[in-house]
Amino acid sequence: MVEQSVNLATATHDRTRAGGSPARPDNGVRELVDYNYLSTTTGERKTIRAAHQLYEHLISLWAPAIIETAHDLGVFARLSKGPGTVAELAADLDTDQRATRVLLGGLVAYGVLERSDDDGEGRYVLPEEFRHALLPGGTFSLVGKMAHDRHVAWSAWRNLGDAVRQGTRDRSGNDRTNQISETNYEDLTFGINFWAPPIVDVLSSFLAESGWKKDQAVSVLDVGCGTGLYSQLLLERFPSWTAEGIDAPRIIPLATRQAEKIGVGARFTGTVRDFWQHGWGEIVDLILFANIFHLQTDDSVQKLMRSAADVLAPDGLICIADQIVVDEARPTTAQDRFALLFAASMLATGGGDAYALSTYDQWLAEAGLERVAVLEAPMHRLLLVGHAGRHTRAH
Amino acid sequence: MVEQSVNLATATHDRTRAGGSPARPDNGVRELVDYNYLSTTTGERKTIRAAHQLYEHLISLWAPAIIETAHDLGVFARLSKGPGTVAELAADLDTDQRATRVLLGGLVAYGVLERSDDDGEGRYVLPEEFRHALLPGGTFSLVGKMAHDRHVAWSAWRNLGDAVRQGTRDRSGNDRTNQISETNYEDLTFGINFWAPPIVDVLSSFLAESGWKKDQAVSVLDVGCGTGLYSQLLLERFPSWTAEGIDAPRIIPLATRQAEKIGVGARFTGTVRDFWQHGWGEIVDLILFANIFHLQTDDSVQKLMRSAADVLAPDGLICIADQIVVDEARPTTAQDRFALLFAASMLATGGGDAYALSTYDQWLAEAGLERVAVLEAPMHRLLLVGHAGRHTRAH
Repeated sequence: MVEQSVNLATATHDRTRAGGSPARPDNGVRELVDYNYLSTTTGERKTIRAAHQLYEHLISLWAPAIIETAHDLGVFARLSKGPGTVAELAADLDTDQRATRVLLGGLVAYGVLERSDDDGEGRYVLPEEFRHALLPGGTFSLVGKMAHDRHVAWSAWRNLGDAVRQGTRDRSGNDRTNQISETNYEDLTFGINFWAPPIVDVLSSFLAESGWKKDQAVSVLDVGCGTGLYSQLLLERFPSWTAEGIDAPRIIPLATRQAEKIGVGARFTGTVRDFWQHGWGEIVDLILFANIFHLQTDDSVQKLMRSAADVLAPDGLICIADQIVVDEARPTTAQDRFALLFAASMLATGGGDAYALSTYDQWLAEAGLERVAVLEAPMHRLLLVGHAGRHTRAH
Repeated sequence: MVEQSVNLATATHDRTRAGGSPARPDNGVRELVDYNYLSTTTGERKTIRAAHQLYEHLISLWAPAIIETAHDLGVFARLSKGPGTVAELAADLDTDQRATRVLLGGLVAYGVLERSDDDGEGRYVLPEEFRHALLPGGTFSLVGKMAHDRHVAWSAWRNLGDAVRQGTRDRSGNDRTNQISETNYEDLTFGINFWAPPIVDVLSSFLAESGWKKDQAVSVLDVGCGTGLYSQLLLERFPSWTAEGIDAPRIIPLATRQAEKIGVGARFTGTVRDFWQHGWGEIVDLILFANIFHLQTDDSVQKLMRSAADVLAPDGLICIADQIVVDEARPTTAQDRFALLFAASMLATGGGDAYALSTYDQWLAEAGLERVAVLEAPMHRLLLVGHAGRHTRAH
């Protein structure tokens, strides 16, 4: 007996590591499985590892539920006024105390909240960098995206099977009305503003490096501009540029207001125009299509390409920022993975697709255009396009 | 003009990297954001990065939807018979061809399917290691988990706010009936079998290292055994051991059947017994509580602890395998994160919690027990426990 006790004591140590999993830097979604304890060697072990991977995918459902519930209950609005304990938060939000503690724990696990135990009691804190994204009204607020999820996405994704059985196109090959446009397009328009700054970074760097129209009074046409943030951020960087954003009547006031807010109102013109009608006005230097092509079908793309080619200056550029698939068979990049999944999102909510780079090349050729460069952004690719033969490509 | 063309051509190169994001090894959920293009430096840049992180969490919803929809439509069953093209699969599944292509693309993005383009046309393949987890009937099948998600989890998580407002406990402090036990407890019992092998690995290694009861005829009591996989896998490793699994009348036949299948039927006894009644029978060497404590409240834990202490041999061990929280404030390990989130899952579906290691220590002390070791498994911690003072701890 004694010997066994001694043996056990020798073997006793907390194998709990202090440092956390070394496998993944603190970027995106953190691992919920410690793969250090899962082997990849033999047949059955591979199966068990695969089951953990699948389970981790299946429980991804928990993240939007926890974050959106916290939003619905007013957790973020409350914490924007200062940290709070479980008891304080439950009192302020009129929620059950134990359940509130569990919800807050989930938010800490996802890295959305921090918890400080400095004076003996846990105090939950909304980190500064998340404040803007989680509260309403700011340029990069995700509140619109969360509203969209609550109104549309949860039930659309739960019933994805219906869309796969029936498809989303009517007999003439057009997408049925996208559920988004019927409900809360405005929410979602603001809800994806956060995509714009890194995309404009990549585009601006490329244009600056290439010396394209350096110091000239470039005119920009932002087609289906939404809030207009892409062209507005370009105006912010290039003080001699001007931009026109075209979109639907209920969207243009949002764009005009935002241009003022950003301080480029004098150089941004919001124009209500149906860009499906022929004739886009004056010749322009740079045409932006930000998140436009994934909503198109083959027919509508060709119409857009021709309209763009018609008004593009001889040395002008078109920038298509979208979910563009480069390797559909082996999606090893975040951009390819997101593009393929975004296509499924379009399917779930009623229309759209993510097209392959090779498909874009065909469309461009048909419109007398050609690809000048492909750039990467965090969740997009940027396709830079000119008139065929104008910008010698380095093949 | 010419110079500008030359400049552009010089700057032109596909910045698309061939290798994929280097940031994360191919373990769990793959990144959908390329964080290389997001800076962490200044205030607004940090906000934009945080918005990408939140967005990535919000769209986690897509993963269970895509995988479960594929299951519902019979994609995995079809691919278990051999690879197929989009056209073949859509014909066999009676689904829309374009929508099927999008769904398959999503599965490839998540790494659940592979696509081979060897003979010019994309052929989708179910990798061997996922087959077992995605098809029904196998020991490590997740089909039960997916059924549980469809029947319970989607609506429970969608309505998590109700649980946070109202709590899940009635006036006497007991959890309201867990939604699981009412619907598909059997599904879920099998659906989490995959947790067992790495947990038994960790436990077996520890016991072998410590020399505890080496080569003796150890008796195991598996309390609330479910399918009994934990004790059955121990019997597989230790040929001189015997085990008794106790659970409810509708569960025990599943456990007995599985013991036969694994080849340890002669040494496993499934016993229908209400383990809330006092008196667990003979003295035993090793008591297993696998995924039992997270369903308990303070009162019921103490009852279980006392019952276990009563039948535990003087040099015996209790192994508690559960979601045990070590650092609630800074959950840097996958085990802590999963534990905190699992508590939210219990909240969503009607009962249970994840308790802190310090809480376990208190419970143990009250029952005359003490902690011998804490071990880690992929999604669990294992608490090894003995009678107080019997296993000298290395403090």
